[in-house]
Amino acid sequence: MIASLRAAFSGTVLTDSADTAAFLTDWRKVWTGTALAVATPYSVDDVAKIVRWCAAHDVSIVPQGGNTGQSGGSVPRAEGQNIVLSLARLNRIRSIDPANNTMTVDAGCILQTIQDAAADAGRYFPLSLGAEGSCTIGGNLATNAGGSAVLRYGNARDLCLGLEVVTAHGDIWDGLKGLRKDNSGYDLRDLYIGSEGTLGVITGAVLKLFPAPAERATAFVAVASPHQAMALFDAMRARHDTALTAFEIMSDMCLGLVLDHVAGVRRPLAMRAAWYGLVELSGNDVGAGLESSLADALSAGVISDAAIADSIAQSRSLWQLREAISPAQAADGGGIKHDIAVPVSSVADFIDDALAAVAAAFPNIRPVTFGHLGDGNLHFNFSAAAAAAGADQVAFQATAPRLNAIVHDLVRKYGGTISAEHGLGVLRRDEADAHRSPVERALMRAIKTALDPQGIMNPGKMMP
Amino acid sequence: MIASLRAAFSGTVLTDSADTAAFLTDWRKVWTGTALAVATPYSVDDVAKIVRWCAAHDVSIVPQGGNTGQSGGSVPRAEGQNIVLSLARLNRIRSIDPANNTMTVDAGCILQTIQDAAADAGRYFPLSLGAEGSCTIGGNLATNAGGSAVLRYGNARDLCLGLEVVTAHGDIWDGLKGLRKDNSGYDLRDLYIGSEGTLGVITGAVLKLFPAPAERATAFVAVASPHQAMALFDAMRARHDTALTAFEIMSDMCLGLVLDHVAGVRRPLAMRAAWYGLVELSGNDVGAGLESSLADALSAGVISDAAIADSIAQSRSLWQLREAISPAQAADGGGIKHDIAVPVSSVADFIDDALAAVAAAFPNIRPVTFGHLGDGNLHFNFSAAAAAAGADQVAFQATAPRLNAIVHDLVRKYGGTISAEHGLGVLRRDEADAHRSPVERALMRAIKTALDPQGIMNPGKMMP
Repeated sequence: MIASLRAAFSGTVLTDSADTAAFLTDWRKVWTGTALAVATPYSVDDVAKIVRWCAAHDVSIVPQGGNTGQSGGSVPRAEGQNIVLSLARLNRIRSIDPANNTMTVDAGCILQTIQDAAADAGRYFPLSLGAEGSCTIGGNLATNAGGSAVLRYGNARDLCLGLEVVTAHGDIWDGLKGLRKDNSGYDLRDLYIGSEGTLGVITGAVLKLFPAPAERATAFVAVASPHQAMALFDAMRARHDTALTAFEIMSDMCLGLVLDHVAGVRRPLAMRAAWYGLVELSGNDVGAGLESSLADALSAGVISDAAIADSIAQSRSLWQLREAISPAQAADGGGIKHDIAVPVSSVADFIDDALAAVAAAFPNIRPVTFGHLGDGNLHFNFSAAAAAAGADQVAFQATAPRLNAIVHDLVRKYGGTISAEHGLGVLRRDEADAHRSPVERALMRAIKTALDPQGIMNPGKMMP
Repeated sequence: MIASLRAAFSGTVLTDSADTAAFLTDWRKVWTGTALAVATPYSVDDVAKIVRWCAAHDVSIVPQGGNTGQSGGSVPRAEGQNIVLSLARLNRIRSIDPANNTMTVDAGCILQTIQDAAADAGRYFPLSLGAEGSCTIGGNLATNAGGSAVLRYGNARDLCLGLEVVTAHGDIWDGLKGLRKDNSGYDLRDLYIGSEGTLGVITGAVLKLFPAPAERATAFVAVASPHQAMALFDAMRARHDTALTAFEIMSDMCLGLVLDHVAGVRRPLAMRAAWYGLVELSGNDVGAGLESSLADALSAGVISDAAIADSIAQSRSLWQLREAISPAQAADGGGIKHDIAVPVSSVADFIDDALAAVAAAFPNIRPVTFGHLGDGNLHFNFSAAAAAAGADQVAFQATAPRLNAIVHDLVRKYGGTISAEHGLGVLRRDEADAHRSPVERALMRAIKTALDPQGIMNPGKMMP
């Protein structure tokens, strides 16, 4: 059978377990699956040939980019006959049109490569997230990734004008348009974006570019509470509008984990506070505006202290404190993670209510609360009472269903989502389905059946 | 049969031809259809009851908002058994959450009512188009309307966070979320947006609001050519970024039609030019920036003259010149219209090529070229050699297929779309289908069949 797959296209087919292992386990090492082979095509035509081979042999296809997903969407199931379809060698920047502010790319391009190519063309591609050095744009689009620039520029969906997809039938849909206005059919682009490879394989995209910001100004501020952080956010958004490009929050517990577990970082403010904000303005002459806004917030008692970066290196150090929280939590033994969003108007109330509810049920566990306050999106995580490994960590993880229920019930009460920017994969699949109305479940099932009637596209992901 | 429809819900059922006539013909009076009745529900539950009645009786449903569409999508066919489902009485602003920058509305709300409600809450809803005094937000979303603020704020699609839809089965899908990040299933919202009522009936929406711009600065400029207009656009976009909120273009022919046919308007610049631009900046202190940019453009010979509005009334007068072009062309006898978009980098070349190609084939017809240059979207219209009515207008309209072929072939050559912001309806249905690849046609058909298996939702629109 594998011989016929090898003959079906001209790329690489890996079957040796030493070669395939890295493709079968996610980077967090939570999920491990099995596959007949890992197929690595070098062209879109070859992707189509692989899909047609799988359709003919009734073999499932798991599209995979950088395999950096948080929810297990990019590794195969433990059962069934699966092929991992790696897009890693489909990694050309196809073209850049600076005057149209667009770039056309292969799905396997690394996000950072795209950011760099945009910068080389005097433009800016704003999608930015922790894994940007190894994640691919195809995976970003398949999960509609968020990140730290959503406040101004939107999610991956908002940064894509056109798409190329190999359908579940092995046909190539060419939707690679670079148009700002187009209403010439159903919105297939947005249907494939965020569908986690369950409807087809994204092979190319037309991305939006932006003028490179003239200047960036970054500050780390101390606040007494999430409500105070929201007060600063509201004031800065009203004053700076689109120049406010990031507004992140983290608890003192998060900063403590980073200081304990990450080398070469230091406390940015002399005094500890309960919460911190990381704020960034981008544009012309934003330094003076940031200083002025923070001076006003200090006078008004909204913030208790602030450190403004006076160099790009200092700005990077402040961002490192934010980006190192997840690795620091992992180094501390791991945690139970949530990827929730609520209306921005409710995020401070949600934090208060949810922290109180969890503390009442689990008095000793440590909340690790951080995220994109300006988007209403929190990584509302928890760690064991003390750094825990082995059996202690396993015992802590066993509390996840009860803990998730407390957090996610409050998310629902606030009209929020339990899946903001990391996708459903297998991690959130069943819980998302339980939250779904029968009408929505039927609509999703109808679309899945219509576009993938054989059910070979990434089965077991997104939907039970 | 109508008696059972009356009994099926608690709203109004119109059957008298004097009452139904206005619902059966579009405002341009190009298309007239027939209907068993016009049903006017007052609640979402009643919309669902009407759809279930239609499904049970195999009667087609034509959802209608303000009936201001340009492409015939909102009036019934001349054949078959149809019900017009008017959303006009579903017109409540349901709620406003200023801190979340969202507003939840019924689909039948008039666009201007929504703009006003946003302003009353100290916010801004940017969707703006000629028909805003009578079109409804449901129609705007069903056609993914564009308008004059797309450059900064995007199309209707980009302004909607959540949707409520009555499906073709008569179920209510509640997707009314006001979240900036959400990946909890397939993107049903964007599938219904732009589907022109062929998949379901939009009954409500959560809209994005924005800070009200502190100040607006508007100017009317004279340029020698579309390439010069593009040079000004590029310079202003690089300098002003998101503060550049509109960049419109019109030929001298357009201005002439407005001066001839619209009362109370006057020429804004002393000297005539071949082309004019209407540019607007929004934000803090934008007046000085506009003056400075235009002074630079004058010095560089990019523009030959400029009039900057020094009051809100003057700004409105300048915008009136742009918005009166369509009515002026109608008063002149009507025209052959195109709603095309090409990459912004190609729009000036496209205008040159397409005007030359049309002039070669039809030496005497008058081009009426205007549109949203910054979006690459042109209303690339034509009028008869002289103001023509009756048989002369009919003879001129008979050239449309040949004229359309010349224009649309060039659109395709430039990677553009023949349907940018007015929808396909019946006007562009067949030509869009002819341009569509077999793969895309099959995908659209599969989705239509999956979500509307009986084929009762607005049949004959969008797809043959």
